[in-house]
Amino acid sequence: MTTLSSAPRSYSRANGERFVSELFEMLRIPSLSGDPAHAGDVQRMAAWLDNHLRDLGLQSVQIMPTAGHPVVYGEWLGAGPDKPTVLVYGHYDVVPASLEDGWDTPPFEPVVKGGKIYARGVTDDKGQLFVHVKALESYLQTAGARRSMSSSCLRAREEVASPNLLPFVQEHLDLLKADVCVISDSSMARIEEPAITHSLRGMTYMEIEVQGPKEDLHSGFWGGATHNPALALVDILGKLYSDDGTIAVPGFYDEVVELNEAERAMLAKNPLSTEQFQTATGVPGVWGDERYTLRERVSARPTLDINGLWSGYSGPGPKTIIPAKAGCKISSRLVGNQDPDKIFELVKAYVASITPPTVTVEVRLLTTGRPALIPFDLPEMQAAVHAYEKGWGHTPIFTRGGGSIPVVADITSLMGIPVVMMGYGLDTDGLHSPNEHYSIEMFQRGIETAIVYLEELAHLAR
Amino acid sequence: MTTLSSAPRSYSRANGERFVSELFEMLRIPSLSGDPAHAGDVQRMAAWLDNHLRDLGLQSVQIMPTAGHPVVYGEWLGAGPDKPTVLVYGHYDVVPASLEDGWDTPPFEPVVKGGKIYARGVTDDKGQLFVHVKALESYLQTAGARRSMSSSCLRAREEVASPNLLPFVQEHLDLLKADVCVISDSSMARIEEPAITHSLRGMTYMEIEVQGPKEDLHSGFWGGATHNPALALVDILGKLYSDDGTIAVPGFYDEVVELNEAERAMLAKNPLSTEQFQTATGVPGVWGDERYTLRERVSARPTLDINGLWSGYSGPGPKTIIPAKAGCKISSRLVGNQDPDKIFELVKAYVASITPPTVTVEVRLLTTGRPALIPFDLPEMQAAVHAYEKGWGHTPIFTRGGGSIPVVADITSLMGIPVVMMGYGLDTDGLHSPNEHYSIEMFQRGIETAIVYLEELAHLAR
Repeated sequence: MTTLSSAPRSYSRANGERFVSELFEMLRIPSLSGDPAHAGDVQRMAAWLDNHLRDLGLQSVQIMPTAGHPVVYGEWLGAGPDKPTVLVYGHYDVVPASLEDGWDTPPFEPVVKGGKIYARGVTDDKGQLFVHVKALESYLQTAGARRSMSSSCLRAREEVASPNLLPFVQEHLDLLKADVCVISDSSMARIEEPAITHSLRGMTYMEIEVQGPKEDLHSGFWGGATHNPALALVDILGKLYSDDGTIAVPGFYDEVVELNEAERAMLAKNPLSTEQFQTATGVPGVWGDERYTLRERVSARPTLDINGLWSGYSGPGPKTIIPAKAGCKISSRLVGNQDPDKIFELVKAYVASITPPTVTVEVRLLTTGRPALIPFDLPEMQAAVHAYEKGWGHTPIFTRGGGSIPVVADITSLMGIPVVMMGYGLDTDGLHSPNEHYSIEMFQRGIETAIVYLEELAHLAR
Repeated sequence: MTTLSSAPRSYSRANGERFVSELFEMLRIPSLSGDPAHAGDVQRMAAWLDNHLRDLGLQSVQIMPTAGHPVVYGEWLGAGPDKPTVLVYGHYDVVPASLEDGWDTPPFEPVVKGGKIYARGVTDDKGQLFVHVKALESYLQTAGARRSMSSSCLRAREEVASPNLLPFVQEHLDLLKADVCVISDSSMARIEEPAITHSLRGMTYMEIEVQGPKEDLHSGFWGGATHNPALALVDILGKLYSDDGTIAVPGFYDEVVELNEAERAMLAKNPLSTEQFQTATGVPGVWGDERYTLRERVSARPTLDINGLWSGYSGPGPKTIIPAKAGCKISSRLVGNQDPDKIFELVKAYVASITPPTVTVEVRLLTTGRPALIPFDLPEMQAAVHAYEKGWGHTPIFTRGGGSIPVVADITSLMGIPVVMMGYGLDTDGLHSPNEHYSIEMFQRGIETAIVYLEELAHLAR
């Protein structure tokens, strides 16, 4: 049986080498968004994408300014108003890389070795982003010209936590209007087991500062009757946790959606053993809430971590002071349906309640991100399952990401549509590390899966 | 009645102005021992003292090398072998000072305002050291030439914790042999209430380092099943203290000599109110072991303070890591008869016993100093009381210093003699601060008290 997608898939295979050489052009642009010295390269990258989308025949192609780096937008809405629209999000920026970090080849001169492309950003996220561009091209050059579904493309920056994306989405809700959003910026453990991320943890990132004396004191003159602010901080931090590794802040777990049996069974398909955990991290032993598996702890349960700690003197040798201040950065990874602002208020109130009268304490909010939890029985999710089965050749599992991609929750809540995270990378691709790579086979399979997904979505009622 | 000391005291008064101008010469030499750029000035200071002691007619005057800055030595043993010998210790080095710190006049250009000399080191310790030089001169130029007691003078450096002094004393025990040691390097609250420090706290200074993962981890990928080393450190530190502010390390208090009623009564003569404490330190409230008064807590009780704390990220904004390491500096102020090395072993063993298997911990010893506790009913101490009554005009109280002067314990234990700490400064002299000063009246009273003390010592059987 010839399906609608067979012509575009053939096209994508026939043009595979050109697609890779075009991807090389993207990879050669060191679009480091976090480094002002590379602002010109980021502009160049945006201009390259803008030109490329125009060449593909997309409409409304434009480079849209934000308070930070620009968003590149293009759309094809030619399938007609009865067809669903898919919004694709990816990011064209990369994190730093240099030969000295341990790269075998220059990070911005892509090379192919053993079927893999080596370059910074090839899996995170230029390659995965380009999957969708090439899927769309394949469609438009074949079936799409006859009949298909609409598609919008949105590409922005992300590597430097994207404070400018939320206002952008808010401002352009009409332009971005769609029925489903697809993001390919994640990975699977094995090529035979593709993964759809249906949950991401959110975040509340805070700073606590304890003040004792007005300035550092001589520990000999004042020690014994001065409440050391570092000790006060230590006591406060100690009281944030219960002995069993759970978080002691009253109300912290109130909004957590407990895992049901189907979800636990799904997570169990992607187990994380103590040995795997220890090998990857080097910890002497694992830790945490023993009522949950390791996989559940790192992806489906909320956390409260100390990210930084400081007080007094940390140079070489002794310095006999009682510090005036002690501070820390702490952050909670949140799960559905915890509200990051509410969590901040709970922590703040609890810290206030356990602060002794011998010091003063301030709790400051640094940043928040909502958790995202997209039910995997939604039709748009199940359409993705079918797309993997037909396009990739394997049935995907649904996974939960322990990290935070605030844009996912923002799109979900602002646009009221599901976000389908179809990651086409491998866990071992080395994103953010030296010798980041991406296999050409995954790239090709991704394009075909993305093509099939467009077809699967077309079956859905609007 | 004309006492033996009346001629030297008259001499010291008659020559007071010259004494001050000689002190000015010392103060003009910026003998900063902690700054290699001032090594030449430290040498110049030593040479000046060497010359001065020769001019006074002392014997065996010499500049003696140590592994650090040199010791200047001189002696006068002409009173005969039946007379007791007093060893005087002071330090000729100073801590840094510059106009930008808030000095009203250049710190190394001494000026007199309102009867006070303003200059770095004038009270700590050049002025107090010079008190003894001028007392000896006054004696030698008058009564001393006829009959008196022996006296040795030892001056060294101290401001940069003196690791070279202990080996120096050990090496020159024969030369330094004496019956009593006098150190004037402390202060009193009011001129009407001179203070003899009969106790100093010792110290065990340690570093604790906790290692969790082999490197910083992404808190999203690993948070929830990784024991955060900062949290582990916080828990360990929390367990070092009991809720009542006492130290929970088993055996910590075992060797503490409890205060007796006479000692508590003596300490009560120099009370420290909550208001005084809060005004001086700026703390919102006082703290500590409520079975003891504030004065007792800061001088007669051992402590355990956190001097520094570090882990992970402390820059601006968020960084979502689980740190690989967390560390701290902690130090105990010790009282008689705690042994600093034993305290280290106790802390180390206790930390090992409370370290969970999810992290590894190292406890390192940085430095130690023995506490000093000299009973105030010793004849050498009571002789000092009489010296103050006759020379200063007021009966002294015995106080305990909360800080540590390791040389005191070292001399006590190595030489087996009492150290009498006759401080001729005022608490408000601003040592180590801008506008350090010393009143000329205190300087003169100090010289006369030191003269009388020589006479009082002569009454003691050898």
